[in-house]
Amino acid sequence: MSRMNDKERLVATIQELLAIPSPTFHEQAICDFIVKRLQKTQPTQCIQDEHGIIAHYRSHKELPTLAFVGHTDVVPEFFEPRIDGSKLHGAGASDMKAGLGACLYIVEEHLSELLERFNIVFIVYNREEGTALKENGLYSLLKENETLLKMIDCAIVAEPTDNAIQLGCMGSLHVMVSIEGKESHSARPWNGDNALYKALPLLQYIAAQDPVVHSIDELTFTEVMTVTECNVPEGRTTIPGTCDININYRFSPKRTEEEAYLVIEKKLRALKIEGLSLEIRDSVPSGQIIRSAISDEIMTKLGCNIEAKQAWTDVAQLSSCGIPCFNFGPGQQTQAHKDNEYVDIESIYDYYHHIMKLVL
Amino acid sequence: MSRMNDKERLVATIQELLAIPSPTFHEQAICDFIVKRLQKTQPTQCIQDEHGIIAHYRSHKELPTLAFVGHTDVVPEFFEPRIDGSKLHGAGASDMKAGLGACLYIVEEHLSELLERFNIVFIVYNREEGTALKENGLYSLLKENETLLKMIDCAIVAEPTDNAIQLGCMGSLHVMVSIEGKESHSARPWNGDNALYKALPLLQYIAAQDPVVHSIDELTFTEVMTVTECNVPEGRTTIPGTCDININYRFSPKRTEEEAYLVIEKKLRALKIEGLSLEIRDSVPSGQIIRSAISDEIMTKLGCNIEAKQAWTDVAQLSSCGIPCFNFGPGQQTQAHKDNEYVDIESIYDYYHHIMKLVL
Repeated sequence: MSRMNDKERLVATIQELLAIPSPTFHEQAICDFIVKRLQKTQPTQCIQDEHGIIAHYRSHKELPTLAFVGHTDVVPEFFEPRIDGSKLHGAGASDMKAGLGACLYIVEEHLSELLERFNIVFIVYNREEGTALKENGLYSLLKENETLLKMIDCAIVAEPTDNAIQLGCMGSLHVMVSIEGKESHSARPWNGDNALYKALPLLQYIAAQDPVVHSIDELTFTEVMTVTECNVPEGRTTIPGTCDININYRFSPKRTEEEAYLVIEKKLRALKIEGLSLEIRDSVPSGQIIRSAISDEIMTKLGCNIEAKQAWTDVAQLSSCGIPCFNFGPGQQTQAHKDNEYVDIESIYDYYHHIMKLVL
Repeated sequence: MSRMNDKERLVATIQELLAIPSPTFHEQAICDFIVKRLQKTQPTQCIQDEHGIIAHYRSHKELPTLAFVGHTDVVPEFFEPRIDGSKLHGAGASDMKAGLGACLYIVEEHLSELLERFNIVFIVYNREEGTALKENGLYSLLKENETLLKMIDCAIVAEPTDNAIQLGCMGSLHVMVSIEGKESHSARPWNGDNALYKALPLLQYIAAQDPVVHSIDELTFTEVMTVTECNVPEGRTTIPGTCDININYRFSPKRTEEEAYLVIEKKLRALKIEGLSLEIRDSVPSGQIIRSAISDEIMTKLGCNIEAKQAWTDVAQLSSCGIPCFNFGPGQQTQAHKDNEYVDIESIYDYYHHIMKLVL
């Protein structure tokens, strides 16, 4: 039996995670797999519940506590992982099993080196993709383990960042706009009031919104407001009596959720469209940039580019608990949620080497 | 047992039809009921098949042949018929069980008087509502009974017309317009190309189309072009990569289906929207105005207002066979397909009296 080298075992760990289907809400199998491997590393404390896993490795109270954080669910339909040249394909390869698997491998293989420098917390959570904040596993883990989490000096969230360090994150607000018209037969449209036509000034207006750039700590966050859904009832011989539009507003850490809603509400009310109503379908806060001397030192050691996180990630939840944190993962942002998702294997190696700089 | 008078029996016949559920494709029970009653009137010939019923009453070859034509299916969900003051409620009350039932009652009660003036053909057909032309029962009945149908000198189609005589009918074309954009995550809309936004010039353009009035034989047909459906894929965090739009074009008897399609195609191509494709989803021809000395005499005797038929009806099929025909029914056009559909009872009496003028 040939013995695998370090790189091969690193990639094999990620492949093992990719081989376990884990769509959102079906994450028990992958959690069981991860917890079994973590238990072999003999954590000081290991919690597993329906929201995920927290493994805690206490070294010395004088040392800073570093957390690795990752979610288990993936978006695209499961397919057998495969290596294709320089790419490792698999559902969730970039978002975020490559990051999660690399952290798992590092904890398994280099725990003693890590513990010379840090206390370590490994947080694995469920239900990140497309769920409401309160369904997100990290939400409950943070709530139920406050004392433990207060100890964290720096958290690395392994979301795909192409190996950049991405600080903060955008908030995301979904507002459902409903416009009432009057249904009628399409042979006599004058008896009705086409709700889609009534919506056109709104659609035009949102389409014309330019991105708004906010600069925070020399990082650039770009606010965007987009119509992502627009539907009228089925019925090809019917003048649509209602039109439902989803506006997704990605707002910078400069705004709270409430402020973001007021921005949309003000814009839409100004259009004076009769029969228009608004409802918040979903809202997650922006992630403030929380740094500390320790997290700055860790970022410096990692030696990667520092950027703003343009999407929403769970750093928002960690930040709101006052935990210094950033996004850092080997996954490609453009590969996230793709049907035939992959991650560049070279990117995994790079990630591994960057993290290993922390224990040099 | 109290004996019902003429009016009561007329309304009771319609109520009996309304008491039998007959959504499109589930019309066997109502056909069986009607054929049983028609057989009691001893037609010279009676055909029943999956498409409907033709009952033929031959009187004398010198006499003109008058046809009563009606479909059995209804649109709204079935509910128990009930009389509420001056209104008879029931699924299909206006469209078109009132007309169908009145004709059935007249044939049952006044056959001998009718046969002094006319040979009579009673055509009852299935699957009129929302079906493609080739699924429509009348399509097959006309094809399979050519000889019999060639004898018809005038056909009355009992569609709801509020007791007006409505000649011809509009054609109806459904064109599915698909616009391709590029899907991306809504956090970075610049990586995508919002298909809905690409569709906005088209939506604006169709919304701005004024009705076009065509005058034919002093009757006014109003052409209208409307967006009746507009859908982008579900996914509130996704920049929609496709947008599907249904345009319904109601065109006057001055145009053929081919011409109607060319009108739309020319307009849309002129907008020069990249990634746009067109597909005909459904098309029914306009109904030419076919009149003859006999049909003119019948219309004069009925003594009702003569108008253009603004919607599509099966006079289009009869006209294309060269049969002089018109729409004439007691149903209210505005009640057709309504959830709590009704017909004014007074309108049924009026209809009955108008038809009876033919045998005075």
